[in-house]
Amino acid sequence: MAKAATMFLLAGAARALRGHRLHHLARPSRTVMSAATLDRTTPTKLQDAESFLKDIDVFIFDCDGVIWKGDSLIDKVPSVLELLRKLGKKIFFVTNNSTKSRKGYKGKFEKLGLDVEPEEIFSSSFAAAAYLEQTEFKKTGKKVYIIGEVGIEEELDPALDLIGVPYIGAGKDSDKEPNMKPGGKLEPDEDIGAVVCGFDREINYFKIQTAQLAINEMGAEFIATNLDAVTHLTDAQEWAGNGAMVGAIKGCTGQEPTLVGKPSPLMIDYMEKKFGLDRSRICMVGDRLDTDILFGNDNGLKSCLTLSGVTTEEKLLSPENKVIPDFYVDSIADYLG
Amino acid sequence: MAKAATMFLLAGAARALRGHRLHHLARPSRTVMSAATLDRTTPTKLQDAESFLKDIDVFIFDCDGVIWKGDSLIDKVPSVLELLRKLGKKIFFVTNNSTKSRKGYKGKFEKLGLDVEPEEIFSSSFAAAAYLEQTEFKKTGKKVYIIGEVGIEEELDPALDLIGVPYIGAGKDSDKEPNMKPGGKLEPDEDIGAVVCGFDREINYFKIQTAQLAINEMGAEFIATNLDAVTHLTDAQEWAGNGAMVGAIKGCTGQEPTLVGKPSPLMIDYMEKKFGLDRSRICMVGDRLDTDILFGNDNGLKSCLTLSGVTTEEKLLSPENKVIPDFYVDSIADYLG
Repeated sequence: MAKAATMFLLAGAARALRGHRLHHLARPSRTVMSAATLDRTTPTKLQDAESFLKDIDVFIFDCDGVIWKGDSLIDKVPSVLELLRKLGKKIFFVTNNSTKSRKGYKGKFEKLGLDVEPEEIFSSSFAAAAYLEQTEFKKTGKKVYIIGEVGIEEELDPALDLIGVPYIGAGKDSDKEPNMKPGGKLEPDEDIGAVVCGFDREINYFKIQTAQLAINEMGAEFIATNLDAVTHLTDAQEWAGNGAMVGAIKGCTGQEPTLVGKPSPLMIDYMEKKFGLDRSRICMVGDRLDTDILFGNDNGLKSCLTLSGVTTEEKLLSPENKVIPDFYVDSIADYLG
Repeated sequence: MAKAATMFLLAGAARALRGHRLHHLARPSRTVMSAATLDRTTPTKLQDAESFLKDIDVFIFDCDGVIWKGDSLIDKVPSVLELLRKLGKKIFFVTNNSTKSRKGYKGKFEKLGLDVEPEEIFSSSFAAAAYLEQTEFKKTGKKVYIIGEVGIEEELDPALDLIGVPYIGAGKDSDKEPNMKPGGKLEPDEDIGAVVCGFDREINYFKIQTAQLAINEMGAEFIATNLDAVTHLTDAQEWAGNGAMVGAIKGCTGQEPTLVGKPSPLMIDYMEKKFGLDRSRICMVGDRLDTDILFGNDNGLKSCLTLSGVTTEEKLLSPENKVIPDFYVDSIADYLG
């Protein structure tokens, strides 16, 4: 893994990503995929699945809202994946959810009856680890402070033969309170060189204050796995996402984070270099306009929105929406034709 | 109190404040206060205290970093207040700290040996209450969800004969966890009509998710007492401020709050109307450029920065700083001449 991650991105590109923000722009003009169906200004519902599949070699699937929703597999997904594999398509699963490592995600796929290789999985927890590897964080001799859950811990863990960077925080700080009595203070580890901020349902003031001191006073780099406003913690309702945790740290430091998950291009650069893929024959499939579809459009991929997640057809078709996918489907079951 | 609050601001002005953000602009050109000393581009250290005091009728003091720092009174403050009262100056204490009500602040002043009337105190907890009074929130029959501490509760409390708006949240939700098991959800009170977000050292995921649902799904208004990045919880270090709590809610809702504390003009409008004050003879005294001094400059007041709080002389004099006070002092003890 360590070797693969060093291919991940150029250091210059990584630095350019500091301060990266979402840009809600219309997709740039690019090659028409199928003259019969493609319209660049109005979203097009997928009609001819067979011809669509012929133009694509690689499918990159967002997970939450596309493959599953909360704890339930979306209808007919196993048949869709079976068809794509039979047609010789390469498949990747990309997720901004940082609560699991790639290993943890494999378990989730298996539980739902899907057989997937860890190499086919790109979680934002892995992206954070790969970014630290590429920027040679290990050489600084510093530690990472984690706001987040076990997924980030596992991807950084030296014991798991991945990038092996020492880390503190995460679950171990969930029950801590700083000394706020007169004259009291929080004394963070002196060696924090980076703060990785992922979704953390045990977010508390101790973690926020530690990150604030590390970034404001110790010069630690601020890295965000993702900026999703809401997430699918369960399928019963929408839940506040990592946008909340990142927003808290932005709000007390005035700093913009280095973003490693979607819509940052880090993951697609990695895939392109590792597997030598032709971008125009890659299709990004997701349920969010401002991350998934923007990510596909901004990176020269084909894009397909599925309505099985957070985006309604009404929102997609509204004149205020400027992010237009190449196609949209009710769910990826529409690929079965 | 209810009556005073109705004078607070015009409903139109209140609405215009939605989406209010900090603007780090140079102060607009205005009447020169003292030709001998005033320079509009370079900060001027106060030399002639006597002539300065002659030009001012009203002093508005920020508290943290000006009157006290954390738990300690700043040196010679009692003598300064005694002098100003002897000279017939009107004095107000304005603070973005929302953790105490005006009543609670009076206690803090007393503990430090300072005798102050509740009417001389303008906390951002009071500003939130006055905003809800002015916008006639009570008539909606809804409740306020509080992210924050006892100061906001006390200013809203019907039992304390202030504005009397029903509220939930705050300390009562500090130990709660939403049901995040498969199929689980958080079911907030159906009557939440506004979320008031103030500094809350017991911030947790339950409160964030409740605010997210209230704002995103129930159409509740999002009100922030203040946006300070850091605060003086103790004098041993800087602490993550309400910028963190507000940032968390911004990050999961995509909404900008209605700001009621500095640098919003709500408080100064109230003072001007209630006491018939001449703005050009009011001096805002504070330790922060981007809230206190900006607040004074943007509202046609005189401004005086004190270096006894978070701003260093180096930062004030740096070419990157565009917010220039009329004068600056090492501490307000310089008023003694």
